[in-house]
Amino acid sequence: MRINGKPGNLISATDRGFQYGDGLFETLAVVGGEPCLWAAHMERLETGCRRLGISMPDRDGLLREARQEIGGEQHGVLKILVSRGAGGRGYRPPRRGTPTRIVSLFPWPDYPQQWSDPGIRLRVCRTRLGTTPALAGLKHLNRLEQVLARAEWDDPSIAEGLMLDTADRVIEGTMANLFALREGRLYTPALQRCGVAGVLRALVMEVAAAQGLAVLEQDLEMADLLHSDALFLTNSLIGVWPVRQMEDRHFNPRLQPRTLWREIRGRAFAGMNTRN
Amino acid sequence: MRINGKPGNLISATDRGFQYGDGLFETLAVVGGEPCLWAAHMERLETGCRRLGISMPDRDGLLREARQEIGGEQHGVLKILVSRGAGGRGYRPPRRGTPTRIVSLFPWPDYPQQWSDPGIRLRVCRTRLGTTPALAGLKHLNRLEQVLARAEWDDPSIAEGLMLDTADRVIEGTMANLFALREGRLYTPALQRCGVAGVLRALVMEVAAAQGLAVLEQDLEMADLLHSDALFLTNSLIGVWPVRQMEDRHFNPRLQPRTLWREIRGRAFAGMNTRN
Repeated sequence: MRINGKPGNLISATDRGFQYGDGLFETLAVVGGEPCLWAAHMERLETGCRRLGISMPDRDGLLREARQEIGGEQHGVLKILVSRGAGGRGYRPPRRGTPTRIVSLFPWPDYPQQWSDPGIRLRVCRTRLGTTPALAGLKHLNRLEQVLARAEWDDPSIAEGLMLDTADRVIEGTMANLFALREGRLYTPALQRCGVAGVLRALVMEVAAAQGLAVLEQDLEMADLLHSDALFLTNSLIGVWPVRQMEDRHFNPRLQPRTLWREIRGRAFAGMNTRN
Repeated sequence: MRINGKPGNLISATDRGFQYGDGLFETLAVVGGEPCLWAAHMERLETGCRRLGISMPDRDGLLREARQEIGGEQHGVLKILVSRGAGGRGYRPPRRGTPTRIVSLFPWPDYPQQWSDPGIRLRVCRTRLGTTPALAGLKHLNRLEQVLARAEWDDPSIAEGLMLDTADRVIEGTMANLFALREGRLYTPALQRCGVAGVLRALVMEVAAAQGLAVLEQDLEMADLLHSDALFLTNSLIGVWPVRQMEDRHFNPRLQPRTLWREIRGRAFAGMNTRN
């Protein structure tokens, strides 16, 4: 772990990330010793910093620190966290704070191979997402809703939980975005009220469009999912997980858009290259 | 500052309080060298710990640490923070985590005397509160909405900002609860969808009832406030702040419930005694 560029694992307890969740993070796959989709993650981090009024750390410096942290590891998870930094008591952000940046490497998660094919079991969480437009789309550090939702189940055969907002709109998984395929069109929940706008989600939309598959961002309800031909989840570590079963509803694996998956997985786990 | 009972100011960057805002806090007035409303703050902390599934620290131990931290100071602000403690990557809370507890003393805030009488100027914030019943009422560490709301104004003559939820219900200030007096009845926003259930808020409800003043917890809108005779804000540090002016609406200071204030302030700043 590197804190503001230096090896270490301690931060000030006055850090506003700790006191108020006042910050953002990115989670990247490391493949072949290189972070994947670097530019897209940096774009999102910069957008988040701009929306929260936090100074974006220098990208080249972050990449240098990421490579130092990765060292000789070929495969892993790189987490980059940026908080508003240390501050006094009170919600008001300091005018000229010095952000804290933390770059750390974790082992690759041991997800069962069958979660990628034929797919996962998905449950529906009781914990709802609140609707806060000012925070919608951001991967910020206020994650208690996800913590409570993820604490709802212990069954290791269930890979993910689906979260709805307080108006019964389907939004996302606890850690992944959702897509639904129906009659040749791809749907994904609109995220202007809540939810995290995933880097993989944007990639799916780009790749699907390039493959001639229309993608619609709109409000979706449970009935829309139940009447879909296929569902799948995406994030930077899982790539694509088809949904084999959601509660009692089983999905036909042959209706999954396999051509789309292949390209998404190829692009998601390509490591650094000239394109990203 | 004391971290798990020992003087220090550094925590692990893997603390879930930092990674996810996975924790709670209390802010207490220190008067005459003693924390005020101790029992009520401990009750709320324990309720929060139970709802989040965090082990409540031992109360006597916390009081011992609070007194060590206060030392010889007569007047100040005591902040007690309890997080779920260190953990790995991922939202899922560990089954048997060891919570982190932080006890720290801050200087008494230098609020102008006239904010207590005749009262404050209150603005209305653009940032809205999301509605998350699972978190409603708790003083948890997910405070980005308050941070963004408090960043909306710089004018030092405005003491506080009023926050509405996404359905236009009035909820609270960025750091204080709200009461409205109308035709001899006291109203305060219901907090089952969002908001922090303040220790002072509960005290006001108790004292008002004892004084024969009916208190109604219900949904309120801006129109209800504009048609009120008096508004006031409460928290453990400010005690009571009457609202002199909210945006363009001026309130007649003679309509404020001064008998109620006096008793609330007396009880709020009494220090430790047999009653609390």
